[in-house]
Amino acid sequence: MSTSADINDIEEGLAFRPNFDASGLVTCVATDAVSGEVLMVAHMNDEALRKTIASGEAWYFSRSRKALWRKGETSGQVQRVVEMRTDCDQDAVWIRVEQTGAACHTGRRSCFYRAVTAGEGTVQLSFVDAERLFDPKDMYGK
Amino acid sequence: MSTSADINDIEEGLAFRPNFDASGLVTCVATDAVSGEVLMVAHMNDEALRKTIASGEAWYFSRSRKALWRKGETSGQVQRVVEMRTDCDQDAVWIRVEQTGAACHTGRRSCFYRAVTAGEGTVQLSFVDAERLFDPKDMYGK
Repeated sequence: MSTSADINDIEEGLAFRPNFDASGLVTCVATDAVSGEVLMVAHMNDEALRKTIASGEAWYFSRSRKALWRKGETSGQVQRVVEMRTDCDQDAVWIRVEQTGAACHTGRRSCFYRAVTAGEGTVQLSFVDAERLFDPKDMYGK
Repeated sequence: MSTSADINDIEEGLAFRPNFDASGLVTCVATDAVSGEVLMVAHMNDEALRKTIASGEAWYFSRSRKALWRKGETSGQVQRVVEMRTDCDQDAVWIRVEQTGAACHTGRRSCFYRAVTAGEGTVQLSFVDAERLFDPKDMYGK
C-alpha cells in the first residue's frame, strides 16, 4: 500500500522515481518545441528513459515489436529533446522536441492528423494538417 | 490478425474506431488551447469518450478509482474542449482545452510541474511553473 508519505515524496519530491506500469512502461507525450503541437504519444521503459536522458535524443519502447527503438533510426526523422518533464504521479513524461521532418510513420508531421467531431447521432473524423512530408512506401519500402 | 486493409482503414479512414487497450481505455493528452502546454495525461473509456464528445467538456476514466469522472466535478476546474484529435492507430486522443484554473489535483496549472535533468551520474527533478493556484487541502479537505 502507498502511504501518504510515499505519495508526498512522489508528488512533491525531487527524486525521479518513474512509476512504470505492469509492462514496465511510462507514457511519453512528444510535443513540437516551437509550435506546441502534439507530435506523438508512445511509451518508454527504463532503458529508453535512460538513453533519452543521456543522449538528448528520443528513444522509445515499441509495445508491438517489444523492442527498444531510437526514434528516426530507420527514417532519419529524429527528435532532439529540448526539455523533459514528469507529471504529479510520475507515470508519464512530456518531452518538448525539435523534430526532424515527420514524427508519424505515415509521413505526417504529427500522428494527430484527424479531428474527431460529433455529427448527427454519429462521430466522424476529418483530416487536419494531414499533408505528407514523405511517402511511407519510399521510406519503409512497404 | 490485422490485415493491411484493416490498418489502412484505421490509419487513413474517416470512421472513428478507438483502439481500446485490454482495460478498455485510450490515452488522452490534454493541452492548453492557448499556450500549447501539456496539462495532463489521463485515460478515457468508451463512455468517457462519448460524454466528452457529446458535452464538449472532458470526462475521464480513473484507473485507480475504477470510475467515470467528469473533470472538475469536485474542484470546479473544468475543461472545455476546443478540439479533439485522434492519432494514426487510434489508441490515443489529444484534446485542446480551455482549462478553468488548475488541471492538477496538487493545485498547479499543469501536472507537469517538474523538469527531468541529467546530473553527474544521476537524474534529478526541479520545479518549473510549479506555483499553486489552490491549496489541495482546502479544495479536497485532505
